[in-house]
Amino acid sequence: MSPLLESIKEPNQIHSFSDEELLQLAEEMREKIIDSVSQTGGHFSSNLGTVELTVALHKVFDSPNDKIIWDVGHQAYPHKLLTGRSEQFKSLRQTDGLCGFLTPYESAHDIFGAGHAGTACSAAVGVSIANHVQKKDNKVIAIVGDGGMTAGMAFEALNHAGHLKNDLIVILNDNRWSISKNVGAMSEYLNRIITGQFYNRTKTDLEKIMGGLPGGESFLKMMHSAEEHVKGMIVPGTLFEELGFRYFGPVDGHDLLQMVDTLESVKKLKGPILLHAVTVKGKGYAPAEADAMKWHGPTPFDKVEGKIHKKPGKKSYTEIFVETLIEEAGKDDKLCAVTAAMASGTGLSKFAEAYPERFFDVAIAEQHAVTMGAGMAKGGLKPVVAIYSTFLQRGFDQVLHDAAIQNLPVIFAVDRAGLVGADGATHQGMFDMSYLRLIPNVTVLVPSNEAELNGMLKTAFNHNGPIAVRFPRTGITDEFPNYLKTEPIPIGESVTVREGQGGVALLAIGTMVAPSLEAAEALSEKGIDATVVNMRSLKPLDREVLARLAENHHDIITVEEHTIAGGFGSAVQEAWDQDDLPPVRWKRLGIKDHFVEHGSRDDMLHRLGLDSEGIARTVEAFVTHSHGAASGVYRQ
Amino acid sequence: MSPLLESIKEPNQIHSFSDEELLQLAEEMREKIIDSVSQTGGHFSSNLGTVELTVALHKVFDSPNDKIIWDVGHQAYPHKLLTGRSEQFKSLRQTDGLCGFLTPYESAHDIFGAGHAGTACSAAVGVSIANHVQKKDNKVIAIVGDGGMTAGMAFEALNHAGHLKNDLIVILNDNRWSISKNVGAMSEYLNRIITGQFYNRTKTDLEKIMGGLPGGESFLKMMHSAEEHVKGMIVPGTLFEELGFRYFGPVDGHDLLQMVDTLESVKKLKGPILLHAVTVKGKGYAPAEADAMKWHGPTPFDKVEGKIHKKPGKKSYTEIFVETLIEEAGKDDKLCAVTAAMASGTGLSKFAEAYPERFFDVAIAEQHAVTMGAGMAKGGLKPVVAIYSTFLQRGFDQVLHDAAIQNLPVIFAVDRAGLVGADGATHQGMFDMSYLRLIPNVTVLVPSNEAELNGMLKTAFNHNGPIAVRFPRTGITDEFPNYLKTEPIPIGESVTVREGQGGVALLAIGTMVAPSLEAAEALSEKGIDATVVNMRSLKPLDREVLARLAENHHDIITVEEHTIAGGFGSAVQEAWDQDDLPPVRWKRLGIKDHFVEHGSRDDMLHRLGLDSEGIARTVEAFVTHSHGAASGVYRQ
Repeated sequence: MSPLLESIKEPNQIHSFSDEELLQLAEEMREKIIDSVSQTGGHFSSNLGTVELTVALHKVFDSPNDKIIWDVGHQAYPHKLLTGRSEQFKSLRQTDGLCGFLTPYESAHDIFGAGHAGTACSAAVGVSIANHVQKKDNKVIAIVGDGGMTAGMAFEALNHAGHLKNDLIVILNDNRWSISKNVGAMSEYLNRIITGQFYNRTKTDLEKIMGGLPGGESFLKMMHSAEEHVKGMIVPGTLFEELGFRYFGPVDGHDLLQMVDTLESVKKLKGPILLHAVTVKGKGYAPAEADAMKWHGPTPFDKVEGKIHKKPGKKSYTEIFVETLIEEAGKDDKLCAVTAAMASGTGLSKFAEAYPERFFDVAIAEQHAVTMGAGMAKGGLKPVVAIYSTFLQRGFDQVLHDAAIQNLPVIFAVDRAGLVGADGATHQGMFDMSYLRLIPNVTVLVPSNEAELNGMLKTAFNHNGPIAVRFPRTGITDEFPNYLKTEPIPIGESVTVREGQGGVALLAIGTMVAPSLEAAEALSEKGIDATVVNMRSLKPLDREVLARLAENHHDIITVEEHTIAGGFGSAVQEAWDQDDLPPVRWKRLGIKDHFVEHGSRDDMLHRLGLDSEGIARTVEAFVTHSHGAASGVYRQ
Repeated sequence: MSPLLESIKEPNQIHSFSDEELLQLAEEMREKIIDSVSQTGGHFSSNLGTVELTVALHKVFDSPNDKIIWDVGHQAYPHKLLTGRSEQFKSLRQTDGLCGFLTPYESAHDIFGAGHAGTACSAAVGVSIANHVQKKDNKVIAIVGDGGMTAGMAFEALNHAGHLKNDLIVILNDNRWSISKNVGAMSEYLNRIITGQFYNRTKTDLEKIMGGLPGGESFLKMMHSAEEHVKGMIVPGTLFEELGFRYFGPVDGHDLLQMVDTLESVKKLKGPILLHAVTVKGKGYAPAEADAMKWHGPTPFDKVEGKIHKKPGKKSYTEIFVETLIEEAGKDDKLCAVTAAMASGTGLSKFAEAYPERFFDVAIAEQHAVTMGAGMAKGGLKPVVAIYSTFLQRGFDQVLHDAAIQNLPVIFAVDRAGLVGADGATHQGMFDMSYLRLIPNVTVLVPSNEAELNGMLKTAFNHNGPIAVRFPRTGITDEFPNYLKTEPIPIGESVTVREGQGGVALLAIGTMVAPSLEAAEALSEKGIDATVVNMRSLKPLDREVLARLAENHHDIITVEEHTIAGGFGSAVQEAWDQDDLPPVRWKRLGIKDHFVEHGSRDDMLHRLGLDSEGIARTVEAFVTHSHGAASGVYRQ
């Protein structure tokens, strides 16, 4: 047959496909993903696992009339290929290219945007309600990984859906992984179902019960003889059944034709249905099947050799974090580490090797991670809760209500703070300075280089209250070869990295210190001699340096890789006014009130005017124009 | 016997109590709670439900060495009585009195602070880890209501605990209620266990299976004869067993001596245990047993007559909200309402009566409520998600990731915004303006009276994007008898309520408009003629009024019933600088960087300097001192 994939512009084109064509299409899609991701990098093994499932879904259902709602989105590349985005596929995750996750801004078939895990069931319940209220009868299907199912909100949604009884199909895409190997009792439960242990255990339980009953013996004998027959009949999905779902499965998610048949059957049923499909992460690409975690989101690779190209680049802040943690944990046996299914991304897998008994992966469960950390602190430990900035949003209430009100010494290692590049809008770490600093009792430190990260962590590990150290996804500066030898950095102490005489000060934090200094050097050639301060401590701020600046500076520019709303700049100004310092002119550089799309971090910083060139340009315009001053009515 | 309760200073005193003494003690405690709450008001029926459970816990365990961790805290009055706080009990929830929830600042026996539901399991897992790592063998017990168990984070904790296998006892205090009647599939599951339907259902399932097997008939006959015997043996807690817990129960939580025996047995077991205790909300006080919701948190009442004293007071903003919603829902069949176990508190129970098919209570599940709302919006409805300010913290990531990135028209009715009075630190609505306004695409409106609430809701119901209307717990102003007739209030439009000539402007929002105006009137007698602006729209702000103020005002004071960090004042200043308005002197009035304890709202506002007197005092001091100006180096 001639190639099929490239001719598909709308998924309903495959409704008329023969079995043979469907099978060929799946093969083409798998090839396309391997070929394309080998060149661009991106989420990989999850997407190889959903090829057949996706083809079956679009064969059986009528998207976008039927609402196919994918959880997380990084399992949805096959869905992108079938919904008119095959040609653009090579632009994935690049500046102005396709988004790596689902987004309704890209296609009407992306019913619900998704970057964070565990949202699909709730969204699907919402759509099912909309159908019910408006008497529509289109189908609603949520596809959720076994990882996403560990998120508390997924449970909340199942609990509600099982009660509502609206028509809703949840497909549990069970590949036994979140990003790391999936953990938790639910995961073990699913594993028992798949391996048949569930049946064995049920049988054992029954034997225990029946053994003690009159006539029980004969039942057991009968049962033994009928074992094969019973095996298929004792329903293994009790947990879901008890939550009000009808459970079907497990079925092989790679048996495309069986999946089509199963979905055709399931489509006719009413009420909440859970279909348990078992898939293999990395399916069809041997190296990825062998090491699903390594191949979760590889950089470009040699697809024939199966070798991931070494990222040319610097060591990461993440690596410095975990090296520091391991070193300090050697001296302090109270230091423990907590992650929410991000052992690899947070670097903690290395800590887990060194101190397995002090490492805790709680699954995709940020809320629990934070409050458990608070409990650990209450019990006398020093928990280091390492969560990406974007995912800590899930634990906001827990930081506030459980750690901060009680002033418990939980250490938050906030990774991926600032722009994250290819992951885009759903994953930007551009809100944490605002949402953390508004919480009383919380201290927030922001390193601008690897040595500061080391020193701040040492400070944090011995701080008597909740404390966050936020650090970026970028490479380190390479300027501090002995970064592990830094002394603890005092809370609330800044460093003035450039003394200027022009009455202009740039107050920068974290990643913005280096470009601000560069900008100041460039400006000095234009006659603007600016002071540059590395603020380091977002909360509390260095009030002494502010008072000192107030003596001979009239233009203050704050610079942050973060939303301006409630961020670093506003923190500085709040402190300034609280200390009754004299009026000055203010300029805040940061991200204005909008989300930031995917693309290379450098591209994005450039567009946002947060590279040294952009900073210099804005500062120059600000200090040389006199509108603010000329129209001023300030009177003493 | 002579009275026992008043002699108890430490709970271990009851370790030596006889059965008779324990029973008498429980009776005294129940009497004390009825007597005291009838005079002070407070959480009532939940606490009557935990009297025997509490006595049994303190009889069997050794607090605070053993860690008894209560969820929510409003079931812990009996615990307070047994831990040295009986004498102060009458000061409950009052200014400088006992806290209505658990707080370690009050007693070493309050192991973990708790106001929000669903945190105890996570905290207990954390403490169990601390025990394990530090090789301590004290017991850890979490007591969680069936309501709290619906919170996603409780599931996250169970999922993790069942995997960890640390020693941990979870007592499910099942009274079939959250604050409202509990909903959700989990609740129905527990109900089946209690009523024995579970057993019947299991039997029916088995009959179905066995009926078709060779020999099955004889098994069924055998089973029938052994029915009574089997009844106690088929374990009903499958759901918890599948999550790795050993399930015991259901037991009668009011049978004190049996509870003691059960806890003694359970205490000896290893690993994660779930003990299912069934209790009656309002137990021992007939009116409360008959209407648990009405008696959840009554104001003072006549304990003999069982009549709650009519609150002398004004209509609430909550009532205006629901009246408006019902009226508009009559004209617009897309309007729906969502609550997270707060049908009564949010006023939505009235909406539920009027439009049952458009009302959705999702249980204690704010995350799901928000994302489900986003799904409903996606499906073409106009969901009004009514959640208290403090609880919406739980849905922060969902507002951002699910509603805002996709710019979906979800309407957030943020009740209890500002100080909440008697509930105290865990429940203050003093962060939402900061955490909502930092999210792109979100509009935030803040009424200062009932007419504005009506008009703003009308605006919100027809807004094309996520929008929050935040309103306080206080009574309405009574100045607008025709409040339901207000026109929609334009987004981003303020009202100048007083034009001053003195160059001083008070910019107030919400509840702070009235006292600011009063303060301005008082100040005018001292020669300070201030402008007062009711800003109304937090996001977007009225930029025109700022530009106008900039023309002839040099001192700007912002006033908010909210934390200063990232709040309204900073929003104003960010806009001011972004619009390049000239430097002025700034003063922010609001809540400084600390939590606010329980007490009467008026007392708290007074202490915080946010009553008219405090505002006038601060403004006078600010505008008459010239330090900020005198030391200024501002140069053009």
